[in-house]
This record gives sequence, C-alpha cells and structure tokens, in this order.
Amino acid sequence: MIAEIDLKKCIRDIADFPKPGILFKDITTLLKDGKAFAQTVDALAQKYKNEKIDKVLAIEARGFIFGAAVAYKLGAGFIPVRKKGKLPAKTTSVTYSLEYGTDTLQMHEDAIKSGENILIVDDLLATGGTANAVAGLVKKMGGKIAGIAFLIELVDLKGIEKLKEYPVYSLIKC
Amino acid sequence: MIAEIDLKKCIRDIADFPKPGILFKDITTLLKDGKAFAQTVDALAQKYKNEKIDKVLAIEARGFIFGAAVAYKLGAGFIPVRKKGKLPAKTTSVTYSLEYGTDTLQMHEDAIKSGENILIVDDLLATGGTANAVAGLVKKMGGKIAGIAFLIELVDLKGIEKLKEYPVYSLIKC
Repeated sequence: MIAEIDLKKCIRDIADFPKPGILFKDITTLLKDGKAFAQTVDALAQKYKNEKIDKVLAIEARGFIFGAAVAYKLGAGFIPVRKKGKLPAKTTSVTYSLEYGTDTLQMHEDAIKSGENILIVDDLLATGGTANAVAGLVKKMGGKIAGIAFLIELVDLKGIEKLKEYPVYSLIKC
Repeated sequence: MIAEIDLKKCIRDIADFPKPGILFKDITTLLKDGKAFAQTVDALAQKYKNEKIDKVLAIEARGFIFGAAVAYKLGAGFIPVRKKGKLPAKTTSVTYSLEYGTDTLQMHEDAIKSGENILIVDDLLATGGTANAVAGLVKKMGGKIAGIAFLIELVDLKGIEKLKEYPVYSLIKC
C-alpha cells in the first residue's frame, strides 16, 4: 500500500484575498505536486466509477482543472460551463445571485442529451449558489445529476443546504 | 487495434465568432465525446512520456482542460497561468502584444523550481504570441521547456515562426 498524501496540508491559506477579511484556499500548491494532484483526481473518479457517468461538467476556470482530469479518468465527455459570451455556439444561460449583484453562466444547448448521466465537478463549495445554478441548467437540458463533487467544502458556509436534492461529495472539509 | 477517431472532424467551425470575419474553431464538440477527448489526451501525453516532465503548464481557460488531463496522465504537477489578479500568492507577470493592445498573464513565483522540465499545453496555436510570452516566463523562472503542445495549429498564421527556439507539436493542423 502506498502512503497517502494528506491533501488538506497541500492547500495554502492566503489572507485577505481577493479582498480584506477573506482567507483564500489556494489550490496551486496541491496542483504543482504531481503525486497530490493524481491522488486527488483518482479519489474523485473512484467515487463515481460505477455510476456510468456520460459527461463531466465543470465551471470556468479552476473547475476545468479537476473536471477535465476526472472526465479523462472516467472515459467520459467534458462540458465547459463558461462566463457569458465565451462559448461560440447557441447557449443556454442561468443568472444567479452573489453576495453583491448577480452572475451569469452559460453552456452550449447541444452539450447534454436528454437522460445523460452528468457529474458536476468544481474546486470549492462555498455558499453553493454557483453549483445550484449549474445543476438547474443541467436539469433544464434533461440531464440526470449523478453527483456534485468538490475538492474543498467550506463547512461553515453551509453550501450543502442549497444542494439538498443532489448527492454531494467533498474530498476535503475545512 | 482500436479504430482511431478523426479528431479534426470533431472540431466545429463557427463563423463570425468572436467578431465578424473570424472562423472560430469550437473544441466543445470534441470535448463532449468521451472517446475523442481520451484519444486527444493520450496522443498528447504519448509524445512526452519519455521526457520526464516535472510539470505541465497551461493557459487560462481552455488550456486548463487539456493541460490538466495531460498532467494527470503523465503523473506531472500542473501550473495554471492566469489573467492578471486571479492568482492569490506572489506572482511573476508577462505583458505581450495582441492584434489590438496588450495582455498580461501571471504565474506564481514559486510554481517552478530551477531546472525543472516543463511542458506547455494550449488548445490553439494562432499567432504564437501567447505561447511565446509564457515560454519566456518559464525560462525567467529557470524552467527548461521540454515542449509546447497544441491541440490545433492554424498553419496559415505562421505562429510556429515565433516559437522557433522550442520543440513544438500540434495534434491537428488546419
């Protein structure tokens, strides 16, 4: 048996980013460690290997890093969800509330076929607003949500409560 | 032997995106096909499997998709190069010319150790300006450039001429 890396220790805390009072979870220290990155992707993929995932959907930009590697490992397709105006073909959009104001995310209308098994992957579960909005988009397009997987869950923010109707998995709880 | 997918046929041309007169290469049609995506990642990784790649570096945001999966396949670390202000720790920057104006990209100062073998991965080689700027950053930090790999090379734009000093590989030439 190979000794496992403590992934939590690979995450770096950065004070006051992006603004004063925020303690930012910096994942680049985990990413640059090839063994820690591989262990992360393997652990996320392992959880869903018997779920017949058709496509992994991930949110721009950090979500792409974990989502694409997990899609590759599962042999699934990959769907990028992007900020407004970045996708070239016909899109479907969702606008949702942030702490201040709103944000809009888009995916291609032809990204999901009705009945497909979709895994949503993102790096961080904070308030859950983004994941909940994206899960709504998937359902609107006829996809079935097999799971929503995060690298890190910020437990105190209770984002999990917004995602009650979905199976949620977090690799690291902080 | 498994029949190979013609990856070029998996790319969709979108006219007049992001502005009139541009024929955009849409890779989302390749990504959503699990077999085509896996074949792409395998082909890119295969090219460098004997090169002892320490880290794969990729450029926000589409580059993350291929770069992260190739890093995983090679067992290498992953370095995100991002737009200004997105990385939380101390960064090093490069500003380079675009058709109109300039752009700035950043990576963390501690991303590369001197002497490490770096593979740069991006989705598209157009004029070569971005890849050349990022390769300069890698050299500045003491990294050795083992290769620059693209999914697509737009041959008519002659971006390869800006990258003469590096080993460049493109999976699809258009």
